[in-house]
Amino acid sequence: MKENVFYGKGMKAVEDDYPDLHLAIVGLNEAVFTGKALDYKTQKLIALAITASNSDTRATKRQMESVIKEFGATKDEIMDTLRVVLLTSGMPPFIKAVHLLKKIIE
Amino acid sequence: MKENVFYGKGMKAVEDDYPDLHLAIVGLNEAVFTGKALDYKTQKLIALAITASNSDTRATKRQMESVIKEFGATKDEIMDTLRVVLLTSGMPPFIKAVHLLKKIIE
Amino acid sequence: MKENVFYGKGMKAVEDDYPDLHLAIVGLNEAVFTGKALDYKTQKLIALAITASNSDTRATKRQMESVIKEFGATKDEIMDTLRVVLLTSGMPPFIKAVHLLKKIIE
Amino acid sequence: MKENVFYGKGMKAVEDDYPDLHLAIVGLNEAVFTGKALDYKTQKLIALAITASNSDTRATKRQMESVIKEFGATKDEIMDTLRVVLLTSGMPPFIKAVHLLKKIIE
Amino acid sequence: MKENVFYGKGMKAVEDDYPDLHLAIVGLNEAVFTGKALDYKTQKLIALAITASNSDTRATKRQMESVIKEFGATKDEIMDTLRVVLLTSGMPPFIKAVHLLKKIIE
Amino acid sequence: MKENVFYGKGMKAVEDDYPDLHLAIVGLNEAVFTGKALDYKTQKLIALAITASNSDTRATKRQMESVIKEFGATKDEIMDTLRVVLLTSGMPPFIKAVHLLKKIIE
Repeated sequence: MKENVFYGKGMKAVEDDYPDLHLAIVGLNEAVFTGKALDYKTQKLIALAITASNSDTRATKRQMESVIKEFGATKDEIMDTLRVVLLTSGMPPFIKAVHLLKKIIE
Repeated sequence: MKENVFYGKGMKAVEDDYPDLHLAIVGLNEAVFTGKALDYKTQKLIALAITASNSDTRATKRQMESVIKEFGATKDEIMDTLRVVLLTSGMPPFIKAVHLLKKIIE
Repeated sequence: MKENVFYGKGMKAVEDDYPDLHLAIVGLNEAVFTGKALDYKTQKLIALAITASNSDTRATKRQMESVIKEFGATKDEIMDTLRVVLLTSGMPPFIKAVHLLKKIIE
Repeated sequence: MKENVFYGKGMKAVEDDYPDLHLAIVGLNEAVFTGKALDYKTQKLIALAITASNSDTRATKRQMESVIKEFGATKDEIMDTLRVVLLTSGMPPFIKAVHLLKKIIE
Repeated sequence: MKENVFYGKGMKAVEDDYPDLHLAIVGLNEAVFTGKALDYKTQKLIALAITASNSDTRATKRQMESVIKEFGATKDEIMDTLRVVLLTSGMPPFIKAVHLLKKIIE
Repeated sequence: MKENVFYGKGMKAVEDDYPDLHLAIVGLNEAVFTGKALDYKTQKLIALAITASNSDTRATKRQMESVIKEFGATKDEIMDTLRVVLLTSGMPPFIKAVHLLKKIIE
């Protein structure tokens, strides 16, 4: 698990002080991102869609940076993801995510 | 837009009584599902992920049936989608969606 | 407070067994629905909008029945409320609420 | 649609790069804010209530500024809206919105 | 993990078809319910509070039955939990949970 | 009610300008935190769990500081609370709360 990339400093704190919990999260992370039927990049776009639909700025930003840097997702792929957020979750989470995307790409 | 497939009876009621609103929804739907950078099936799996993460039984069931019947999504592709729901949204929405998937496939 | 209308059997159970909590809820309810700057009916439509945007079938149905029966809200007024739900919260909660409205009115 | 007022920089980015999506959003926006059965200001208060109930600081602030500047909503009208947020969504979103209101008005 | 108690048929389906994911969930479950600083019953009441605050009927019912049958939680302990749901999440999730509690206990 | 501790400046504004609403909130707060079947500290941990599961940074930080300063909650008690957030609500709200905890304690 690339926890420094995906989860930031919070994950480091868990690893240091709660190794049992850290192990369980690593195990979960590996069981989630199998990259079998769907490839890893698609799963990351799904994770991005869910965090964006929750209007969660911090998690959306992290997922967006991760899917761009690690998997080379394009602006158009992310926008196609956010179009679904617009339809299923409305304008406020959509426009917030578009604003984040603009700041990350520029 | 295949509104009978995706939105059910509610959409028919909108079409009959509020044609202006119906037109706007059709326009939105078409602008969302462009199938350019991401294909339509991937966008439908993203929509499924968002409705499942909201624990919305009715919408999840509808998206699940649609992505299976219209796009031939496999059980493993849907499970790879739901794995991301588990990681980002926890056990209750995940297990509810797994239960729905089991009922639809059997 | 017209708790039988607005909150159903759950509220009766609170009244019987937890009179202190019941009193606090009655006090809150009265402080919320003041009908001063906004009239009561508008506040009920706002409550309906929030429950509909949460895709909460049970609460939405109750608010819808209440605003129709107690305040004579029309189908068009409720649809104008649900239009805002569509824009701010997306298709799944909107279409679920339209479906409920159709069933209540017919 | 007054997208500069309501949606900020994110909407400008959509207009520049995704004109098809922009057109669909403009169409949706116009179909939502009809101002027929309910007047525009009431619909904006409903939008404010929904964003406040979601604890979405950015969207709540934007809706609050818009309804005050464009429609002359008073502090008491907004408080009557937030009272409903308190009853339906609890203290954390209510108190966050009250705090925003205080900062905007002062 | 007592998955038959906590997660129902969905979990059995995961165990049969996706043993890697099942193992990860068992590991997570064990790392979560440590019962060290907080006892297991308190953690279960916290899980109940979260599912109730999400207005998730199915998950709330399951948590409520589990904490009563497995840990002997009393009606008053559950009501003290739901009082916090009322304050933090509003009337609709609170009254729905009270209604469920009434049905389970009677 | 210790509103300065729990609710901050927003509550002061309510007290000054809307005394009826303030009274109702004080009454609700007292009816919620009875400390009978569950002690006050446990109820505060439940409130913390709900705000953390909603990814509400502001409210989570406030609840965390309050339960540490007023009730002497330990880091391990809060982590046992957040473990339940992880299981029921997923990684993004969990890791955000862990990050807040780290900043508050250090």
